[in-house]
Amino acid sequence: MGGEISHVAVFGPGLMGASLLMALRKKSPHTKLSVWARRNEAADEIVKRGLADAACTDPAKAATGADTVVLCVPVDRIADVARSIAPHIGADTLVTDVGSTKQTIAAKLEEIFSEDKNFIGSHPMCGSEESGLGAARADLYEGALCVVCPTTSSRPELLEKVESLWKTVGGRVAQLSPADHDKAAAATSHAPHIAAAALVALVADEPEAFRALCASGFRDTTRVASGSPELWSAILAANAGETAAALQRLEKILTNYRQAIASGSRDKVAGMLQDAVAQRAKIFPKN
Amino acid sequence: MGGEISHVAVFGPGLMGASLLMALRKKSPHTKLSVWARRNEAADEIVKRGLADAACTDPAKAATGADTVVLCVPVDRIADVARSIAPHIGADTLVTDVGSTKQTIAAKLEEIFSEDKNFIGSHPMCGSEESGLGAARADLYEGALCVVCPTTSSRPELLEKVESLWKTVGGRVAQLSPADHDKAAAATSHAPHIAAAALVALVADEPEAFRALCASGFRDTTRVASGSPELWSAILAANAGETAAALQRLEKILTNYRQAIASGSRDKVAGMLQDAVAQRAKIFPKN
Repeated sequence: MGGEISHVAVFGPGLMGASLLMALRKKSPHTKLSVWARRNEAADEIVKRGLADAACTDPAKAATGADTVVLCVPVDRIADVARSIAPHIGADTLVTDVGSTKQTIAAKLEEIFSEDKNFIGSHPMCGSEESGLGAARADLYEGALCVVCPTTSSRPELLEKVESLWKTVGGRVAQLSPADHDKAAAATSHAPHIAAAALVALVADEPEAFRALCASGFRDTTRVASGSPELWSAILAANAGETAAALQRLEKILTNYRQAIASGSRDKVAGMLQDAVAQRAKIFPKN
Repeated sequence: MGGEISHVAVFGPGLMGASLLMALRKKSPHTKLSVWARRNEAADEIVKRGLADAACTDPAKAATGADTVVLCVPVDRIADVARSIAPHIGADTLVTDVGSTKQTIAAKLEEIFSEDKNFIGSHPMCGSEESGLGAARADLYEGALCVVCPTTSSRPELLEKVESLWKTVGGRVAQLSPADHDKAAAATSHAPHIAAAALVALVADEPEAFRALCASGFRDTTRVASGSPELWSAILAANAGETAAALQRLEKILTNYRQAIASGSRDKVAGMLQDAVAQRAKIFPKN
């Protein structure tokens, strides 16, 4: 048994971290919550808002005594933060993260926590183009798919504990290996992010009178492209191989469409679009 | 003067046509409204719902007496419907359409109405992935950009009249030549539609456990791909050249991203994403 979740330490009170604090406060009011923030001002703000019992900028202090540590910092900072807490956690403490890529993170953190095998990665699929404490909300995890990524070395009781954490805040849990997660995320999230940014670039090259034609369809299609370039360039760097492979497949599909359109094969284009309608209806039965 | 808009004939009571009827009923209650529908059932439904004063399946009858005719049928049927009404309209009757492409339509309809130069094309930018009478709503045109596409042969008083029509139902009017419209629509709407459909195809190739990772970002990015394949294949066929050119530019942008990601140029990727954020903020100041 990984034991009860009675003291959670959240590292990084941004959109994901602060929303987790709010959700735990609401759903599990007796759980002690401590926070590590990079800046004193952010730590003070957390306490002032009553989002945690304690908040500080000292990783060791924030981690000490917690039975569950959730690393909610950008993917390129997770390993550094993990190293700073490793000497200070208990043998049965669960360490998880909420990073959008899993393979490179799992490799590093399983090494850092190799002694007690504390780490199992997570990726709650509820990020958005917004970021920061200001965008946080108590229901962010409600109904969200929370992917957990155990490996052959994961401890079963800690796997149970991490699943329990996400269920507590309303998430639906699925298991994927870190490699499978990254392949799936490349197709469902990382390549689509680039496609959205590329569409913005396509239109940005046009005269202003042309750009004025961007309507609600274009707004929705490109919404994710307003996400933080800092966070996203780190995510793409951590999943570069799979994202590049997915983009290459996407380019090939676009070329097929372009050739069908240019050759005047209206029936072929209609068939391809019909497939897309049917495939999308399977993915989102309620649109 | 093109005169008052006192009798509007709407051809095709789908999403665009029926919404126009509802808007005119509300904003201009003394305007007489007549409707042509392809099927008797649709004509009956229009009258039963009180959306028009008269509705029938005879184009000549529906057009007779109208000072304004709005063709709201799919783009590949506009020319046929136009031919069927040409002998039955008055010399000062305005004929416009709501098709998503303008160049081929303008060429055909300026020929059909060459005697009295009745035609000026329109494209209200408020379509959606929904279609049909059931999706119609009185505020569809409210705040929507309504592009009107005069040519050198357009009559100034009819241009004034078509602009007045869209303003009456709450639209914002902009003028573009048919060629400029189609170039702009390719970049802002037709290529993005294909990109959305291509992203669905990309994910459809993945195992079901992978597809489960499609979250709200993917839902929004691909929403337009649920649009009618029949309507869209007609639109793409009518704007094939410009759409293919825009897709080729999009493929090039994607290739640039892929190469930057694959080569590990994180700063370059961050810079490209930062450009997209800034460009999108210009297009949609309020997100």
